[in-house]
Amino acid sequence: MTPFETRRRRLAERVDGPIRIPAGHAPSRNYPANRYPFRASSHFLYLVGEGIEGAWLCIEGGRSTVYVPGTTADDALWHGPAPDRAELEARIGCPVRDLADPPSSPAAPGPEDEAVAQALIALRLIHDEEAITGLCRAADATAAAHLAGMAATRPGIREWKVRAAMEAELVARGMTTAYPSIVTVHGEVLHNDQHHRVLEAGDLLLADVGAETRAGWAGDVTRTWPVAGRFSETQRLLYDVVLSAQAAAISAVEPGARFRDVHLAAARALTSGLVELGILQGDVESLVSDDAHALFFPHGVGHLIGLDVHDMEDLGDRAGYPSGRARSDRFGLCHLRLDRDLEPGMAVTIEPGFYQIPAILHDPRRAGRACVDWARLAEFGDVRGIRIEDDVLVTQTGREVLTGDIPKLASEVEQAVGV
Amino acid sequence: MTPFETRRRRLAERVDGPIRIPAGHAPSRNYPANRYPFRASSHFLYLVGEGIEGAWLCIEGGRSTVYVPGTTADDALWHGPAPDRAELEARIGCPVRDLADPPSSPAAPGPEDEAVAQALIALRLIHDEEAITGLCRAADATAAAHLAGMAATRPGIREWKVRAAMEAELVARGMTTAYPSIVTVHGEVLHNDQHHRVLEAGDLLLADVGAETRAGWAGDVTRTWPVAGRFSETQRLLYDVVLSAQAAAISAVEPGARFRDVHLAAARALTSGLVELGILQGDVESLVSDDAHALFFPHGVGHLIGLDVHDMEDLGDRAGYPSGRARSDRFGLCHLRLDRDLEPGMAVTIEPGFYQIPAILHDPRRAGRACVDWARLAEFGDVRGIRIEDDVLVTQTGREVLTGDIPKLASEVEQAVGV
Repeated sequence: MTPFETRRRRLAERVDGPIRIPAGHAPSRNYPANRYPFRASSHFLYLVGEGIEGAWLCIEGGRSTVYVPGTTADDALWHGPAPDRAELEARIGCPVRDLADPPSSPAAPGPEDEAVAQALIALRLIHDEEAITGLCRAADATAAAHLAGMAATRPGIREWKVRAAMEAELVARGMTTAYPSIVTVHGEVLHNDQHHRVLEAGDLLLADVGAETRAGWAGDVTRTWPVAGRFSETQRLLYDVVLSAQAAAISAVEPGARFRDVHLAAARALTSGLVELGILQGDVESLVSDDAHALFFPHGVGHLIGLDVHDMEDLGDRAGYPSGRARSDRFGLCHLRLDRDLEPGMAVTIEPGFYQIPAILHDPRRAGRACVDWARLAEFGDVRGIRIEDDVLVTQTGREVLTGDIPKLASEVEQAVGV
Repeated sequence: MTPFETRRRRLAERVDGPIRIPAGHAPSRNYPANRYPFRASSHFLYLVGEGIEGAWLCIEGGRSTVYVPGTTADDALWHGPAPDRAELEARIGCPVRDLADPPSSPAAPGPEDEAVAQALIALRLIHDEEAITGLCRAADATAAAHLAGMAATRPGIREWKVRAAMEAELVARGMTTAYPSIVTVHGEVLHNDQHHRVLEAGDLLLADVGAETRAGWAGDVTRTWPVAGRFSETQRLLYDVVLSAQAAAISAVEPGARFRDVHLAAARALTSGLVELGILQGDVESLVSDDAHALFFPHGVGHLIGLDVHDMEDLGDRAGYPSGRARSDRFGLCHLRLDRDLEPGMAVTIEPGFYQIPAILHDPRRAGRACVDWARLAEFGDVRGIRIEDDVLVTQTGREVLTGDIPKLASEVEQAVGV
């Protein structure tokens, strides 16, 4: 039985009545025939194993059928022969029919239906063996990309040259990026989509780049490294604080742990480090409950990862927040995308950071500003943004870092930078 | 006056009443927050000079205003500070206002309106100096990509490794691809979107890859090279036939020439070469009028190129076909995307090819099959697809090949392959 058959069977057991899962279509870019690369819906990829544009999976009475668009003579000219139907059926593990043959349940509910959504979430939250293999493949390619990025870094080039080196490793494996790459000397802009700046010798470069395998599995890794191959003293001090926050959060990942507590473990470790450096003043617990850490670490410590880099975010917060829990409106918690109790088979990112974001630091309404030693902070002016992110699988006994092969200690990172 | 001001002024002169040109939005990929890279509408890029997501250009009474989405506190956190308004106005050459301030003509017609479409076509057909600079930049980056692809080629690797080397040259310049790259040993699949095959020593590799500059200008170039760095005798014979067809078509490009005649010049040269090789039998003119050449060259010889790789194809055939002309239903002409009389400032691709496409060659309904010497054709079994494509600007006195620096003679190509 293919893993996709098993998944479909388990889905059918959880939902009464027929289900219909569309693969979707590629949207147009600047004119109808010039389209973005097709990316099938993750629910379809999960249950079918490959993206077939315009196809539908229909499950009815426990039996699955995949309906695929018919091909025309013109298709053979422009797109080549259609894939062999028997081979396709063997890979998917169910009959494949033409969409023209009307499916028996054309109006069956899909992922927009609450019961279907909850059943998909229950399955996809706990990664099976095929899923873990996919996540490991994504992790391996992501590691190659980060090593290539470090090796390509040198003062005087532009950010997009490093981005090119990183993404080439993915394309060279038949993969793509799981999300728009962030490769920037302005790491304090959290979702920076610009890549035109010149790398200066004193800069830190923050690269948040992850692979997506051909089957759709995502990697999501951030490293921050010194452009000149050597951290300044102030950069290294703050880098090690972020690293300690990441280590604390990773250690907190285990079956039964509540993810908000994983987040708070990172917040406490970061705050403790900032108090030691003299940037924050006061008692660590009070600082964290006052959201003082969020002045420098305003986002969540991580999120689910799977076939989507924010797994199942198409279903809103339903995957990240179980029934009975909702997002906090506290500044230090409102961006947290996940607050489940962890179970073996879940995969999450762990990605604390330290940023000097003017829009936050200069906002007089922000709590915790009175606890900042602004003169001391000014001494760390050569740190705009540091983030360290890995992908972590919850195991029976604790956790496994899937992206653990990528240089991360300050000394390892310095070694890998190609200057 | 910026070139964009001049263009807006010329557009306003051609259209009565207000005009509204939207930049558009990036579509979602697998969930709402994970989006494809934003690409502004080419009409907006033409008239404003840069893509601003969600913005609108409004022209009324000869005066232009660009309306941009407002930014929130969250935008500053995730996307950084908004661009400096005064610098933006200076670059665009007109006032920039918040979309929240209601534009005076909210329901003004846009490119979907016939009069606006025809005015845009009249302007964009004839490239101005800024446009030609953009096309040349795209051509330079495209040349670097093809050289890198040739250098990266060797037997035993997969197509996507060559694709990675080519696209990295574009990303490393802050550019992207103007269309999905074709890099394939099965060049007979005209829009092949697969890149997983292993390059065998006897294969030809067909690469149709073009840059898109940051301002949106497109390059569109195809080269076909031998994986082992040396054409076989049969491959070289057919390569030279395609090259002669391209040379004939390029020579036919000049002010006043009808593009269908440029296409037919390629068809005749190709047919003449195939007759000389003994693959086709008969009189060249009769073979062409019977569409015998289209058995091997079933697509058009080229199309308009500009801010879109098929320029203005969002407006259907209105840019490619002037009033009074329409697509032929002849097999040999129906795929021709352009049939205007050429004028100085127009830019077109010239891209004849030779393919052995089973779906065509084995189709008993196709005309011209009786003129094929099938036994002779079988001797050329190591040629599945060859295409040679360049971007050509119509000048006052003739033409200029914008992509002329890319290896093209068989001997040049062999030299550039890195084996």
